[in-house]
Amino acid sequence: MGSQAVPEQLSGVIGSAEPWVVREIGLPDGATATRQSESVFALANGHIGLRGNVEEPYPDGMPGTYLNSLFEERDLTYPEAGYAFPQRTQTVVNAPNGKPVALFVGAEPFDLRTGTLRRHERVLDLRAGTLTREVEWTSPSGVDVWLRTVRLVSFQRPSVAVMRYSVRADAELRVESDLVVNEELPGARDDPRASAVIPRPFRAVSHNRDVLVHRTGRSGIEVASAVVHAGADGKVDVGPDRIRWSAAGRGELGFDKLVAYAWNAVDCEATAVRERDAAATAGFDVLAAEQREYLDDFWSTADVELDGDPEVQQGVRFGMFHVLQAGAQAGPHPIAAKGLTGNGYDGHTLWDTEAFVLPVLTYTHPACAGLALRWRHSTLDAARERARELGLAGASFPWRTITGPECSGYWPAGTAALHVNGDIAAAVLRYHAASGDDDFMRTAGREMVTETARMWQDLVFADDSGTAHIAGVTGPDEYSALMDDNIYTNLVAQQNLRAAALDDEPVELALPVDRSRGVHQQAEGFTRLPEWDYEGEQYPLMLHHPYLNLYRKQVVKQADLVLAMMVYGESFTLDEKRRNFAYYEARTVRDSSLSAPVQAVLAAETGHLSLAHDYLAEAALLDLRGGGESGGDGLHIAACAGSWIALVMGFGGLRDEGGRLSFTPRLPAHLPRLCFHLRWRESVLRVTVTPVDVTYEVTGDPITFRHYGKEVTVAADQAFSVGIEPEQDRPAPPSPRPPKRRAHS
Amino acid sequence: MGSQAVPEQLSGVIGSAEPWVVREIGLPDGATATRQSESVFALANGHIGLRGNVEEPYPDGMPGTYLNSLFEERDLTYPEAGYAFPQRTQTVVNAPNGKPVALFVGAEPFDLRTGTLRRHERVLDLRAGTLTREVEWTSPSGVDVWLRTVRLVSFQRPSVAVMRYSVRADAELRVESDLVVNEELPGARDDPRASAVIPRPFRAVSHNRDVLVHRTGRSGIEVASAVVHAGADGKVDVGPDRIRWSAAGRGELGFDKLVAYAWNAVDCEATAVRERDAAATAGFDVLAAEQREYLDDFWSTADVELDGDPEVQQGVRFGMFHVLQAGAQAGPHPIAAKGLTGNGYDGHTLWDTEAFVLPVLTYTHPACAGLALRWRHSTLDAARERARELGLAGASFPWRTITGPECSGYWPAGTAALHVNGDIAAAVLRYHAASGDDDFMRTAGREMVTETARMWQDLVFADDSGTAHIAGVTGPDEYSALMDDNIYTNLVAQQNLRAAALDDEPVELALPVDRSRGVHQQAEGFTRLPEWDYEGEQYPLMLHHPYLNLYRKQVVKQADLVLAMMVYGESFTLDEKRRNFAYYEARTVRDSSLSAPVQAVLAAETGHLSLAHDYLAEAALLDLRGGGESGGDGLHIAACAGSWIALVMGFGGLRDEGGRLSFTPRLPAHLPRLCFHLRWRESVLRVTVTPVDVTYEVTGDPITFRHYGKEVTVAADQAFSVGIEPEQDRPAPPSPRPPKRRAHS
Repeated sequence: MGSQAVPEQLSGVIGSAEPWVVREIGLPDGATATRQSESVFALANGHIGLRGNVEEPYPDGMPGTYLNSLFEERDLTYPEAGYAFPQRTQTVVNAPNGKPVALFVGAEPFDLRTGTLRRHERVLDLRAGTLTREVEWTSPSGVDVWLRTVRLVSFQRPSVAVMRYSVRADAELRVESDLVVNEELPGARDDPRASAVIPRPFRAVSHNRDVLVHRTGRSGIEVASAVVHAGADGKVDVGPDRIRWSAAGRGELGFDKLVAYAWNAVDCEATAVRERDAAATAGFDVLAAEQREYLDDFWSTADVELDGDPEVQQGVRFGMFHVLQAGAQAGPHPIAAKGLTGNGYDGHTLWDTEAFVLPVLTYTHPACAGLALRWRHSTLDAARERARELGLAGASFPWRTITGPECSGYWPAGTAALHVNGDIAAAVLRYHAASGDDDFMRTAGREMVTETARMWQDLVFADDSGTAHIAGVTGPDEYSALMDDNIYTNLVAQQNLRAAALDDEPVELALPVDRSRGVHQQAEGFTRLPEWDYEGEQYPLMLHHPYLNLYRKQVVKQADLVLAMMVYGESFTLDEKRRNFAYYEARTVRDSSLSAPVQAVLAAETGHLSLAHDYLAEAALLDLRGGGESGGDGLHIAACAGSWIALVMGFGGLRDEGGRLSFTPRLPAHLPRLCFHLRWRESVLRVTVTPVDVTYEVTGDPITFRHYGKEVTVAADQAFSVGIEPEQDRPAPPSPRPPKRRAHS
Repeated sequence: MGSQAVPEQLSGVIGSAEPWVVREIGLPDGATATRQSESVFALANGHIGLRGNVEEPYPDGMPGTYLNSLFEERDLTYPEAGYAFPQRTQTVVNAPNGKPVALFVGAEPFDLRTGTLRRHERVLDLRAGTLTREVEWTSPSGVDVWLRTVRLVSFQRPSVAVMRYSVRADAELRVESDLVVNEELPGARDDPRASAVIPRPFRAVSHNRDVLVHRTGRSGIEVASAVVHAGADGKVDVGPDRIRWSAAGRGELGFDKLVAYAWNAVDCEATAVRERDAAATAGFDVLAAEQREYLDDFWSTADVELDGDPEVQQGVRFGMFHVLQAGAQAGPHPIAAKGLTGNGYDGHTLWDTEAFVLPVLTYTHPACAGLALRWRHSTLDAARERARELGLAGASFPWRTITGPECSGYWPAGTAALHVNGDIAAAVLRYHAASGDDDFMRTAGREMVTETARMWQDLVFADDSGTAHIAGVTGPDEYSALMDDNIYTNLVAQQNLRAAALDDEPVELALPVDRSRGVHQQAEGFTRLPEWDYEGEQYPLMLHHPYLNLYRKQVVKQADLVLAMMVYGESFTLDEKRRNFAYYEARTVRDSSLSAPVQAVLAAETGHLSLAHDYLAEAALLDLRGGGESGGDGLHIAACAGSWIALVMGFGGLRDEGGRLSFTPRLPAHLPRLCFHLRWRESVLRVTVTPVDVTYEVTGDPITFRHYGKEVTVAADQAFSVGIEPEQDRPAPPSPRPPKRRAHS
């Protein structure tokens, strides 16, 4: 929209930090801001995702309704063919859209690009699980209009989304409320992280007055969409790709619109109708109450309280809310990198899920972590086939996928980034240790750990001295590729191999060291490479420089060795961590949103407490206040989880290596209090940290953990409080791209 | 064609080795054999190339008429976009085709799939520069037909091709002789080395009764094709894409068909007509005499005589003939990897030209080497632009191109194979040293050497100890990628840098050594990698295994360190060469045709004389008797040059490091005599080697060279004969894929 059409003060901005709601004041200006806002205000329940598109036609947005694992296939093409290059990929498609409601005020369409917008406010309520929109607008002919919509995607009813719509104006009012399929979408951007848009992905199967049935053309997935409107009389007009419900009234009009979807079901149409009817019978108020109840339960352990930084407090809750929206599960399904908030990365699941999202869900909502890992297990045959194609034993999980097959084109980063297999095994082991879910381990987890270990076993080789190595892989840092002995990869592989215990002797993989610099090498030879020249640099570097040039330099896209020090901290002394952290800090540009949370954790561990706060804030505010341009394609779900990681593993000092909990909490003096919970087996551990002490409280069975290396067992009846040795806040080491300093006393 | 239609004894085979002709007896059976045969019998003059398609319609073939640098553009697409990924490529197109002549015998078409084929013989005459075809065939109704065609693509008239057509039969004879544009072609194969086929690449510009003018759709290149028939009366039928000349007679019919092309000319139509008319006025017999004269001159120094192996003798001459056909130049233009014999590699020029073809032309037909390098120089601006895209200083020449821009998709092999720049610089320095062409050096060569050196200078870095390195490049062996300190690359870069003398101090790049194995490492870390398991292996490996798996193993596609030892032999002691050769021999699978010639040279140098003979034979017979399946897309021109290299640098022991000629000839006892010539400045050196001695003779000014390390100057009036210390033939070291043993006493 043109900025001239809306008073400047009404350009959309996220309002001041409120503890439990995210409020947007005004309407975003232009396509970039509109799409980011749509991602921020997306509602999802792990199964259905609705981007925060406004109801009425609005050209700058990116319509998005996503059904988990509903995808279309498309061909991958290469300049030169090669053995085992993936030939097809899966792409999330825009599902039948039940959001649109066109409003006519007299003869005038409700169109915020015209008339005068007096108030526009959207509120995402993190406890109610609703998105409320309120608009006050004067039409070009001078009619004052008040509009309110409330949306909800039900956590308790995975097939159902509902909207309450209310409008008032001194005029004849008419609405056209659509369920629409194959709507036209804007084209894709020229950015490797963006998605392909498949035009008109659905073929009509059948339609009647309240159900549309469609099927994707190539992947052949059937979707039934059942709609019902309640609260006003309307008439229905139906075609193969659209159900339009129209109603009219004078002065006031209100109705509830409910949509139920069924896909990947035996009889989609009957299922969708059944779920819709049950939800409609319950009605909006019951659905809202159920939603509140679900979220109350979630927040009772998932909430993280941070006193002293309201923006970060809000950001962490916003992040956890979106982690839940992405990860809530009624049955095993993938958790995509963008959740269900956008079509970025084609809707694919990457290593982000196991390495960043599942650690958080494991301790906050373990049932969802278990189901997500059961989904991974359901793809094991595809991973075995992929390992075979790659010339490897066992199983090799894909770099990107929706239902299991490798969907990443051949690529030095993705195809060689075998660490995803170790990330999955680590997530299995962590979930099993924390939940005690032996049934999962017996029926799914053990097989995944064994099969990935067989892949590593095939890859590992010994040099003349008997030292074990892994050659030709790409670690988390995608500005290096095809390296030998990437330390992170070696450590995930080593954990994976030891857990599977395929060999008699536990394998010990090389961790290359640069003795003259006194630091570990991210991978063999890394510290010998020339340095990058950061003078006048633009980020992300990959949009301004060829990969091969980045590969040849000591420039790090995202935490790699630093991630290794977070997850496998016992392989490093504190002194090594300090030197390594400073060394890699000077070479890390954070061109991935996965980096800041990890840097926050190691900054805290190595005593750079203000820096840890800065990185925490970067992670927590990335999608909400960060202005990152890629958020329009969907939120960074791993970064959402990353703010929990930054707080709980950073200031909270949580570690869980070898399935043993440990804490080394340390909070800077300017943050008075941090409080978080962990679920551990049937118990809940509550940890309250202040700059001078920490209190551990347990609900349920006693929990044993280490506090600053000392083993402690805390039972339900005895809180354990202990002082923390205050530490000097060490200044941040040099960085080519320091995070924004967090204002604090 | 079905084998049932043709008597088995008439399936096409190359006849027994004749010194100066290549004879095919019978007609090839099936598409693969047909296309290989078409490549073998291709005629070209560096500008125009005609595949050896038969004149009449024949479904198994791949019609091919190529005009050097006539190409169409097409888009390159990638699964994921990336900075500086080439977006367009150039693809050779099938030019207007003047070969087709359909023959009708009475009411029956002359179609070898019907009737009885009694004789089918094609003869490529390497001294006459003609292809003669003779057919005796009985039609289904019993009419005996005798057909003879003689083709010639004129070296002396770069625009002109001519055919003499004669047919006899006791019947009414009718011919339809076409010049046809946009003919339909079979599709591309699924092999990375194959080419894309662009359907209907030309748009008609104008046509009249004897000239067609067309333009390619996207690259916008105009082509005029002028045709004339002489020797019989006919009538002409013309359309935008076809000129058809028809003639008829009883019992006997004969005519000459002459086509002249003009493209990349100011007035193509006028040029084509002028060239056609001049050639037609001269007539077939004059053109044939001119052709003979040109070839006599060529062979007077390009011929290599080898007594004792008639097949290899024929193969070497066949190879040199095709090197000339690919490289003959009336003005600067590229020499493609397949010459003008097929559309493989999309008609692109690769490093093959400078590293394999130009060394041969430099010493046998130096004017062509100079013009080919002038063509490279004409692409220097594109190379500067490419260096800028790659983040490098100076110029970086493309991995694949037709007119200069990088046409290789982003790819760890091609994009990182920067050695092509050093190969070009080495070719410049070699040509300058051998020819003394200072004008070339001043106006073109020096600038290329300087600009490529600036690229290397930007890439080279020093480690803490001051040792210089190059990181993240791919050497000749494409089964390794993104390696550090690839020895071949370091040596070409070092030569390039020293020749440009940008720095005061001559750079000394690291040559990694594995001390425990006592060998050089092809690249840093290579000898530490696991070994490949060759059990039951199928070749080429790249069609059966993923690149990433090949990258992780000690498996070598093609001579890499061994090539370094050939070109930069002074960097290695003889003892190192012996140990390195044996070590890499055990790990080299020769999945590239560039490998065998180099292995032949080092086998000879390290005293494995029978093995050198085996590799020589593999190179010399590859396209003629090798049965290689990729020859159907065009001949392996570098391997054609490779048989000269194998003989002259292998048994002849020629080296030219630093612009100084040297020889260490050694011939196995079963090969009585080798004789070759080198052009050096204005002189010619003739070298005659026997197992026991060598004779050097000079025409022109005296030549100074080293014989077994001892400097010798030979003048025109004094042949220099010297005995060779006989050497034990060392047995071949183990190889996973030993060459076929050459039968000898």
